[in-house]
Parts: sequence; C-alpha cells; structure tokens
Amino acid sequence: MAKEITSRAENYSEWYNDLVLKGGLADYSAVRGCMVIKPYGYALWENMRDILDKMFKETGHVNAYFPLFVPKSLFEAEEKNAEGFAKECAVVTHYRLKTDPDNKGKLIVDPEAKLEEELVVRPTSEAIIWNTYKKWIQSYRDLPLLINQWANVVRWEMRTRLFLRTAEFLWQEGHTAHATRQEAMEETIRMINLYADFVENYMALPVIKGVKSESERFAGAEDTYTIEAMMQDGKALQSGTSHFLGQNFAKAFDVKFVNKENTEEFVWATSWGVSTRLIGALIMAHSDDDGLVMPPKLAPHQVVIIPFLSKNLEETEVMIDKANDLKKELAKMGIRALVDSDETKRPGFKFAEYELKGIPLRVVIGPRDLANGVVEIARRDTKEKAFFPTDNLPGTIQGLLEDIQQNMFNRAKSFRDSNITKVDDFEVFQKLLDEKPGFILAHWDGTAETEDKIKELTKATIRCIPLDNPQEDGKCILTGKSSKQRVLFARAY
Amino acid sequence: MAKEITSRAENYSEWYNDLVLKGGLADYSAVRGCMVIKPYGYALWENMRDILDKMFKETGHVNAYFPLFVPKSLFEAEEKNAEGFAKECAVVTHYRLKTDPDNKGKLIVDPEAKLEEELVVRPTSEAIIWNTYKKWIQSYRDLPLLINQWANVVRWEMRTRLFLRTAEFLWQEGHTAHATRQEAMEETIRMINLYADFVENYMALPVIKGVKSESERFAGAEDTYTIEAMMQDGKALQSGTSHFLGQNFAKAFDVKFVNKENTEEFVWATSWGVSTRLIGALIMAHSDDDGLVMPPKLAPHQVVIIPFLSKNLEETEVMIDKANDLKKELAKMGIRALVDSDETKRPGFKFAEYELKGIPLRVVIGPRDLANGVVEIARRDTKEKAFFPTDNLPGTIQGLLEDIQQNMFNRAKSFRDSNITKVDDFEVFQKLLDEKPGFILAHWDGTAETEDKIKELTKATIRCIPLDNPQEDGKCILTGKSSKQRVLFARAY
Repeated sequence: MAKEITSRAENYSEWYNDLVLKGGLADYSAVRGCMVIKPYGYALWENMRDILDKMFKETGHVNAYFPLFVPKSLFEAEEKNAEGFAKECAVVTHYRLKTDPDNKGKLIVDPEAKLEEELVVRPTSEAIIWNTYKKWIQSYRDLPLLINQWANVVRWEMRTRLFLRTAEFLWQEGHTAHATRQEAMEETIRMINLYADFVENYMALPVIKGVKSESERFAGAEDTYTIEAMMQDGKALQSGTSHFLGQNFAKAFDVKFVNKENTEEFVWATSWGVSTRLIGALIMAHSDDDGLVMPPKLAPHQVVIIPFLSKNLEETEVMIDKANDLKKELAKMGIRALVDSDETKRPGFKFAEYELKGIPLRVVIGPRDLANGVVEIARRDTKEKAFFPTDNLPGTIQGLLEDIQQNMFNRAKSFRDSNITKVDDFEVFQKLLDEKPGFILAHWDGTAETEDKIKELTKATIRCIPLDNPQEDGKCILTGKSSKQRVLFARAY
Repeated sequence: MAKEITSRAENYSEWYNDLVLKGGLADYSAVRGCMVIKPYGYALWENMRDILDKMFKETGHVNAYFPLFVPKSLFEAEEKNAEGFAKECAVVTHYRLKTDPDNKGKLIVDPEAKLEEELVVRPTSEAIIWNTYKKWIQSYRDLPLLINQWANVVRWEMRTRLFLRTAEFLWQEGHTAHATRQEAMEETIRMINLYADFVENYMALPVIKGVKSESERFAGAEDTYTIEAMMQDGKALQSGTSHFLGQNFAKAFDVKFVNKENTEEFVWATSWGVSTRLIGALIMAHSDDDGLVMPPKLAPHQVVIIPFLSKNLEETEVMIDKANDLKKELAKMGIRALVDSDETKRPGFKFAEYELKGIPLRVVIGPRDLANGVVEIARRDTKEKAFFPTDNLPGTIQGLLEDIQQNMFNRAKSFRDSNITKVDDFEVFQKLLDEKPGFILAHWDGTAETEDKIKELTKATIRCIPLDNPQEDGKCILTGKSSKQRVLFARAY
C-alpha cells in the first residue's frame, strides 16, 4: 500500500524528511551534506526558477555566468565577507590525480599537481563578480549593471537538512552596481519586494518583510533586508534576502567610476538571492500528515486525471480517451495535467500516491458518473470531494485551482497571524517559545550583546525589524532598558 | 568609432577572440582557464538551452540535479572513465580556511580541516549518477530512467580557448538506464539524431553524423556517436556526442534489475551531452570580418530597430513611437526586437555595433522613407540593404528571418561540401591539410596504431566513421592495407 509518513505530532522533523524522500523530491547522496534533487523536486524548482527569472527580466535584469572558483587572494579581499565564509568553504588545492603506485586501480592526489594558489568553491560570488566589474565599469554610462546568476554554491555546513541546509545548493544571486547610494538602496528594496511578491503570490506563503539586526546581517553588507515566513511548527524560515552593500566591495576591489561631474567615485552595490531552500519552506508551510500539498501555481502537475478501469475493455478505452481529451483541453488553458491509466495499480493506491505528491486536484472519470453528466473532483488542500458537471469542466478546474491557491495562502496567513504574540515579560517569552512556538514581538534595547544573550538563553533570534514597524515606547524584554519599537523574535531554520 | 576586429585572413584565431570579447559574449576571468559568460553570450546560451530542453522533454526525458562533487572512491570505480579524467580534474582536499597567524587579513588552508576522502569536482557525472541509480533501480518496472542534468563541469585543460575549451563549462548531460541492449542503443541513436536536428535547424550548421574510432571514444563507452561540423578554417568541431555505455557503469556500480522473467541482469546505459562549446562552433561557422552573424532562431535580438533622430524633436518622437510600435507588433509574433533610440550615438556607430553583435536584421525608421511608405532593412548575412513597404512589415520581417536562417545553413553547407575531398595518396593528404584544410575521406586499415601514426604525422584525427557510409574496397592511406570504407579525417578543435 501507500508509503508511510510519520505524523507531524509524532516527529515533525521525521515527517519533513519522509515528505522529501517518499514524496520523490530529493534523495541523500554519497557526498556528505549534498543531496540529489530528483525529477519531481527539480520540476518544482524549474517552475519557481522560470517565474523568478521572468520577474527579474521584467525589472530590467539580465543573466550572466561567473566562474565556480574564487582564487584565495580575491576571496580574502573583502574582509568581513571572507571572515564570514572562510570557516565553511570547500578548497581546491590540486588539479590532478594519479595512479596509486602501491594500489593498482586506485587513484591518489598527485603531489606534483599542487595549485600555486588555492581556489575556493564559491559560497557566494561577490568577490569574483566585483573583481570582474572592475574591468567593466569606467563611467556613469556603464551603470547601472543589473546582473543575475543562476548557479550552484557550496557552504560546508556541519549539520545539514534536505533542502534547508545542504553543503551544495542551487540559487540565484543578483549583483548590481549603481552610481548613487539612493539608487542602490532602491534596488535593494525593489528586490525584497519582488521576493515577497513571489513567495506570497506563487508559494502561497505570507511573509514579514524587515531589516536584519547587525549580528544577523550578511557578511560584508551595510544592511540586509529579509522576508521571514512561519512554518507549521512555529519556527521562522528566512526565505530571501536583499543586501545593501554600500561601497564595501567597490572599495575592496577598487571599482570606481567617473560621474557626470567628471569626478571619480566608488560604485554602490547590492546583492540578493533565493535558493532551493524555498522548497523546504514550501513543504513545511503547507503539507499535512498525508503528504505534500503543492500550491497550484507551482505544482509540477496541477491535476491528476484517473480514468476508471474495468474488465469491460471497450468502456475502459472510452474512459482513457475522455481522460486524455480533458488533459488536452486543460493544456490549451496552460493547465498541467497528468493522466494515470496504469492498470497494474488500484485506485486506492493511486489516490494515496497523488495525495503524497500533493497534486492540487484529482479528477476521476467513471462511466456511471459520466452517464449522470458529472465527474468527481477531490481537492488536496481541504480533502473535499464533490461532483461537478462535465459541462465546462476546464473552466471549473481553473476556478478550483485559483480557489486552492487563495485558500492555501489564507490558511497559512491565519495560522501565522494567530501565532504572533506581543510579549513584555521575559519569563513569558521563554515559556511561549517552548510551549506554543511562533513569532514574538518584543522590545529590545538595540545592542548585539542583549541579542546574543537572548539567543543563548532561548535559542530565539531577532528575525527582523519589520518594515513600517509601529513606533512605541517600551522596555527591553531582557535588560529593561528603553526601546522605541518591538522587533520580531523566533526560533529559526 | 567601432571596435576593431582582426580579419580572418590576418589571424583566424585572433579574429575569433576579438568576436568573443568585443562582441560581448564572454570575458577572461581571474581564474586560470575559466571564463565569464557575459549577458549577451548567456542570452544566446539560454535560447539554445531552452530549445534543447524542450526537445529532451518531448522525447520523454526529465531533469534532475546531482552533486557537484564525486568522492574519489566513486570516481575511480569505472576504470577507463577514471583513467580518462584523472589527469585533468580539480580536487577538493580541505573544507576550511583560517586566518594566517603570520599575516593579518590573509587566509590559509586550515590543515586540521583535511577531508578524509578527497572530492573530485565533476568532469562528467556518470560515477555519481550510477552510484545513485543503484538505489533507484530494482525491477524492470523502474526502467527506463531517462534523466538529464543541466550543470557546470570542470576539466583542468592546460591550453584553453574561450568557449571551445575552458576549465569550467556549462553543459547538459543525459544519463539513461535501460532493460535491454537494443533499447539503450536506440536511445544513443535517438539523441545523436536530436543533436543533429538542433545543430542543423537552429544553429544553421550542417553536420556529419558518425561513430568514433576506438581511440577517440569516450572513456568508459562501448561506442561514441558524434556530430562533426566544419569551421571556416576547414577544421572540424565535435558538436555533440552520444555514448552507448553498454553495461560498464552498471557493472562498476553493481546496478542490477530483475527482468520480466524474474532473473537478475545488469542495466544498460547511455550518456550524451552538448556544451557551451557549441557557441564557439556557432561563432566560427558563420561570422565574418565585421563581426558575429547570429542565426535568427537563436539570436538574442533578431531585429534591431533604429529610429532616425534629428533636431526636430516632434518628428524624432514620432519616429521613436513608430519603432516601439513595430517592436510590440513583432513581439506578438514571437520576434525579439530591440529599439535603439540612444541620441548620444550616431547611426554609423550603431550600425557597426549591431553588425559586430550579429543581429540578423536592422530596420531604420526615417521620416522621408515613411512618407514614401517604406523602411530600409539591412540583412546581416548578405549585407544587402533594400526598401520594403510599411504595409505588413512584421510579415516581411518574419519572412526575411526565415530566409536568413535558410541561407546561413545553405552557405555553411556548400562551404562544407566543397571542402570535403576524397584522397587516396598520403602525400596529397598531407599537402591538402596544410594548403586547403577541410575534411578528407580516406581509407584506413582500422588499427589504432595507424590512426596514431597519421595523427603524429599530420595532426589530423579520425573525426568519425560516417553513418550509412558507402562500402567500397580500397587501401589504407598510410599502410596500404586493405580497407572496406573511407573514414572522415580532419584537424579539429
């Protein structure tokens, strides 16, 4: 029968792993901390990538590709960035293997093929890109440069989780160069808004936009903007970041331009990225104990059509034809449908399998229903089943998909909103995190020291200082010192 | 004025580099042998990738993603493959850098962060993929597996050329698993045909399909199918390969399946790939001394529209509006147009720039022409300029683009065909290669020894034994031993 899924109540983290592995999204690999993204998971990523790519291009960005490797001397040029990533990077030191003289058929690193300068496998590409921009930027006429890259990056994480934290992951990284601080800041905000738009309107996941505290900032940035989403266990997941880099990288790589007034200035920069981590967010925000729940706009298959198969071969053939006809009609409307006419599997097995895979709608085509002018349609999000007239079925399906998309967002939003609490007492703060995890809005005295102490005591971090945050007088939840606004605390992935 | 391009006659290889660099396709990077693919080059690659991806999906393939790194023990499992790539691979030996105690602000490899097992940066992914397939394949029901991956790979080449041979390059690699030899062989052929279709019908470049001699075969394959194209200097460029791997990788990684008769067998395999090298082929096959010539089906911009700008601002505005209107109309037909209304550059400068970039059609919108009901259109391929009526301009443009695509193919084919020579005498063979390079059809005795000797003496290699090769009795061009067919010789990139 169907694959068994650990329930959320039983073990949330095993539930997550079960969904990823048994839902066919990814698999472990022979390389420590690296995963294989399986076809179903990759199809989901392709949908996300294509939509984001279109959004980037519509906002004037172009794609390019920069080397995988960063020479150590470039890597260390921007000090904070280097410091931030040095502890977790893969280092290429040799360029050849040779036959092991002591062990036939085995290979060893050839000591004579040692690189003069080690190469770091990119954990992020600011260094290699800004070193290149130096060549490309001379005058204000060369600005802005609005470049994005789709790439793999490597961060040698010690504790990894499928999609959420892997040594290698896929992402996009935008790297823009501007003539003024204001333009770069506008770009930073534009991109965090674009990410929020994508996560809310395609992933059906509400986010809180905000700015990071100094301790949580990207290494090398002057400001990091973030979108934070709530998972079903109340923990936060940082879903995208957009960094205002000031002139830090321009100074580290000596990238200057001649402005309209004919004087030389350092270039202003931003960088921004989202990764395959978003797939982890999507899974944890929407799925249930029966499996994945895919938001229709991103689902690899939006509809599965299951024709009723019987010993009456003639009738069966008619059902399969009807199923394929429906698929074709849906394709014309841009709806991705799958027909399952595999006679070796029973309907119950198929139902469970597609529930596990999270396909938004299941349509069963049966002879008796058809004679009554109806088909049975089941929604994955609510598990509701109902009969719908065969007249204008594609229109009905389209309407249902839109409804599911909206319902998933509403459900996630009402869950999120009911799990944000204003807290003014540190004991309550601690207790709440253990007993009813969620987001906490609390006053903070603004120091890194207090932030660290709170993290140490509660494992909660400041996720962000929300944008358009209401200003109110209060006292820091830990130190009692005066504060002008609440910030968002949570335990996080 | 316009950027200067070395002429082909003067220095073919500098001409090529000029086109790549000054045409804005790619740039050198700070990493030895690695290049930066610039936005214009990447847009070209995106077009190629999207078309190929569609063709793969239409033939039943799905995409997935496997790790960048291959543990050494997996890398060495298939002996011939390991031997073939060991000499040119990047090896990760450490996972951390640390601050240099003797040199503030500098980083050194942390000797305590040495990996227990070295990781090879994938030069190709057979090893990591077949190690994964072992988990995924148990029964004939799991077959065929038809998986493709779009990825970066690294081969530590000593002599690199932009696009043609770089340490890191982008490619796709298909890896399929089958229940029978015949099915795997059919897949091998299907994919070489698919590549030929793509290169001929999209890149406008005729190819010769064939099978490689043993010496030129992919390391680990039983047979390698290839498509070979001729560049303007008469040299061959291998443009795509499809490998029948037999059961070599299944045996190396112990991948067996239970067949319908309930007995265990090793799985049959293929792999196939094309890379950013194709961009090199496209440049060298079609371009001229004024710059790139892009085939319309792949050109990032198919049409550039240049409105005539004058001191009459009202008139200028009308011209710009007309240009933008035409762009919109073309977009509706799926034609990618660019409007250049930059007033800081003179028309002559623009014309040279877009010639350099190889945009297939240039449309000039001027007030006097418009009053006469015409616009001037220049073709990049033939340099012809002519006036066309403004009535049904989009239709005219579409027709011209189709004509250019066909003309580019015909021109490349007639050049290719006129440079294939049957030769029966070794002195003529040598002389021809030096004086009028091209492809040579000659008899060969079938031994690797003779092939090596010919290569040593002439730098020419056997590019392939063409498919459907006419059988005829003859004598080996070098040894005079008897031979049943001619094979295709050339110097190659």
